[in-house]
Amino acid sequence: MVYLDNAATTPMYPECVKVLEEYAVKEFFNPSALYAPSVKTAVALNDCRRYIIKVLKGEDNADLIFTASGSEADNIALLCTKKMKNGKIIVSEAEHSAVYNCATELKNRGYEVTFAPVNSDGSLNIEAFESMLDDKVCLVSVMHVSNETGAVNDLSAIGKLIRKKAPSALFHSDGVQAVFKTPVNLAECGVDMYSFSAHKFHGPKGVGALYVRKGVSLSPVIFGGGQEKGIRSATENVPGIMAMKKAFEINAERFKVDYYKKRDILEYLRQKLSDDKDIRIVSPANSPHILLLAFKDVRGEVLMHALEKYGVYVGIGSACSSRKGVGRLAKILVGERAFQEGIIRISVSDYTEKKDADLFIDAVYKEYALLKKFVRV
Amino acid sequence: MVYLDNAATTPMYPECVKVLEEYAVKEFFNPSALYAPSVKTAVALNDCRRYIIKVLKGEDNADLIFTASGSEADNIALLCTKKMKNGKIIVSEAEHSAVYNCATELKNRGYEVTFAPVNSDGSLNIEAFESMLDDKVCLVSVMHVSNETGAVNDLSAIGKLIRKKAPSALFHSDGVQAVFKTPVNLAECGVDMYSFSAHKFHGPKGVGALYVRKGVSLSPVIFGGGQEKGIRSATENVPGIMAMKKAFEINAERFKVDYYKKRDILEYLRQKLSDDKDIRIVSPANSPHILLLAFKDVRGEVLMHALEKYGVYVGIGSACSSRKGVGRLAKILVGERAFQEGIIRISVSDYTEKKDADLFIDAVYKEYALLKKFVRV
Repeated sequence: MVYLDNAATTPMYPECVKVLEEYAVKEFFNPSALYAPSVKTAVALNDCRRYIIKVLKGEDNADLIFTASGSEADNIALLCTKKMKNGKIIVSEAEHSAVYNCATELKNRGYEVTFAPVNSDGSLNIEAFESMLDDKVCLVSVMHVSNETGAVNDLSAIGKLIRKKAPSALFHSDGVQAVFKTPVNLAECGVDMYSFSAHKFHGPKGVGALYVRKGVSLSPVIFGGGQEKGIRSATENVPGIMAMKKAFEINAERFKVDYYKKRDILEYLRQKLSDDKDIRIVSPANSPHILLLAFKDVRGEVLMHALEKYGVYVGIGSACSSRKGVGRLAKILVGERAFQEGIIRISVSDYTEKKDADLFIDAVYKEYALLKKFVRV
Repeated sequence: MVYLDNAATTPMYPECVKVLEEYAVKEFFNPSALYAPSVKTAVALNDCRRYIIKVLKGEDNADLIFTASGSEADNIALLCTKKMKNGKIIVSEAEHSAVYNCATELKNRGYEVTFAPVNSDGSLNIEAFESMLDDKVCLVSVMHVSNETGAVNDLSAIGKLIRKKAPSALFHSDGVQAVFKTPVNLAECGVDMYSFSAHKFHGPKGVGALYVRKGVSLSPVIFGGGQEKGIRSATENVPGIMAMKKAFEINAERFKVDYYKKRDILEYLRQKLSDDKDIRIVSPANSPHILLLAFKDVRGEVLMHALEKYGVYVGIGSACSSRKGVGRLAKILVGERAFQEGIIRISVSDYTEKKDADLFIDAVYKEYALLKKFVRV
C-alpha cells in the first residue's frame, strides 16, 4: 500500500497503543474521583498539559483545554469566546470547514464576519488582510498551514499586524495541519488560541486540544460536571490524552529528521512532475507535507479511483469535504478551468519513503495517459 | 485492589483494546475519504450504528449520533433540539450535571424550565411529574437510572404519561448508568432520544452516543466537515467506536448472568450492613449496580480516604461533582442531618466478586468504629 493521504489521517504509532492500553485497562481511574489512583491520573493529565505547551513553545502560564477533536477546539475558539458588541470577525477564506462553518454560524447570529482572501497557492493574502484590520475587530482566525495546499502562513507577521492594527482582537490559529509539520512557536507568534488534533501526527483519533493564553475568557462548549475548567465537561479521555502525549514525545524527538525527509520526498515529486505541462503544482515551495496537483481535462475523483488499482491512495482535497466534490477553493487555487476539476492532494508522513513516491509517479503517469484519451468537452 | 466505584468509570475490556488497535494502526483510514479502505471503515461505522440500535431494542428507522461522551450526547438532546416558542422544559432534579446544567443554561436563555422532584430513594416522583405535564411542554429529560442511588425509573410509564398529557414534547432519557445495568427497550418506552457512554460498561473513554428517533430535528453541537449528519462534525473516532461495539457484544452476550451476579452482591452487602442503625441504605431495592450509603456522624470523604488504606476504592456520590463536596441531592436523599455528610457510593461491575464485598465490609466496620469515636458536634 502506498498511503499518500496523511493530511486526512495517519495510522497511530504502536507505542501510543501501549500507553492507551496502560491507561484504559490498568490506570483506568476517573481523574475527578478523590482517592489516590484517581489523583495520580489527574496529575498525569496536568503534567501532559504542561509538557505539550512546552513542546509548542507556548507561554508558561497558558492553558490547554483537551477536546475530542481539532474541530471541537476550533468551535471553542470561534463560538465560545467573548465578543464585543458590534465587533468584527475576520477569518481567512481558506479555513477548514470547522472554522469556516463556525464563522458562517456567527454571521447567522448577527455578527459582522469578513472572509480574508488567499493567494493562488492557498496562503493568506497579507496585504488584503492588513487592510481589513481595525480596532473594531474582536476575533481573527487564520490557519497555520493550509489543509488543501500545505501553504505555511507566517503567524508571527500576522500576529504583529493584529497587535498593531486590531489590538482588541483575539488571534486564533488552526494548527491541525501544522503541529509536527512545520516549526511551532506559540509564544513568539503571540496567538491567543491554537487548535490541533492528535490523529494527524500518529496519535489517537478523538483527541485534540486548544491552547489558550492566560486572560482569554471562554464559555462552555459542553455543559456538565465542570471538567476542563468548565469549558468542556465530560469524563476526561485519559487513555487518549496520554496516547497523544506519547505521539508528542516521539514526534518531538525526531522532528528535524522527519521534516527534511518529507521535504525531500515532496521536492522529488515536484521534479518528477514538473515536465508535464498538463500537470500543475498548486502547493507553494514551503509546504511541509502536502502537494496539491491539478491535472488537465480529468476529474480528480476518477484519477484517484484509477490509482487505487495500484494500492495508491491519495486525497482529492480535504477529506472532510471530499463527499461534496471539488472544494470551494478550486477556482482560486486553479485559475484555468480545464484544470479545476482535476485536483488531487498528496500528503506524506514520516512513514512515506522515496519508493512510495516512485510507485505513485509510475501509477499516475500510466493512468493519466489512459484517462486523457477521453477528454471531456 | 477492591474497586467499588464502577459508576464513575470501569477498566476497558482487553478485547476492546485489540479492536481499537486494529482500527488505529491497520484499518486507520478516514471514513470521509473516497477510496475503498475508507469506504470500508464508513460501512463498519454504519453497521455499528444498526447493531447498537438493535441491542438497545430501538426503532429500526432510528439513528445513532456518535459523540465523545455521554455529556455531549446529553448536551445535544437538551440544547440542539428545536423548541416551541414559549415551550416549557421539564427535567428531574436528580439529573446528572450534564443534563441539569444544560437545563440551567436553557433557563438563562429565557426558557421556562421546571425541575421535577424525586423521592428519597432518588427515583422520579411520578405524581408530581404528571401534574407538571401539559401541552405547552416541549422537552422532558428524565434519567433512566440514577447515578447517585441506582434507582431505576420506569421509562415506559413516564413515556406513556408524556404522550398522553404532553403530546408535543420530545422525551429524552440519560441512559449513562442504565445500559448493561438494567434491561433497555427503547422502542417500547418510546423515548425520542437516549444517551449513553462506553466507559461505563468497559468500553473506551471518550466515546458515547445519542439514539435519535426518526423525525427529531437537531442543530449542530460542533460545526465543521458535516460528519454525523452535520450534528457533530469531526473526523470519526473509528477505533473508539469499534471498541465500543466490542464492549456491546461482550456485554450483550453475558448481560443476564452479570445482572444477577451484581444484584446478588448488592443484596449481600445490604444484609451485612442492615444491622447497624448508624448506617442508612439510601438506594432502592431495584438498583442494579449502586448502593448509596449514609453513615451517621462522619464525613463521607474521610471514610473514603480511610478505606484507601485497605486498597478499597469507593465514591462519595457522582465523581463529576465529587470535588464540590456533598451533592445537591444530599438533603432530599438523606433526611436526617446527622447522616447527610456521611455519604459514600458503592458501585459494582461484572468484575466485582463476593470476596470484594467481604473486604469492603471488614474495612468499613473497622474504620467506621474508629472514626465514630471522634463525633463532630
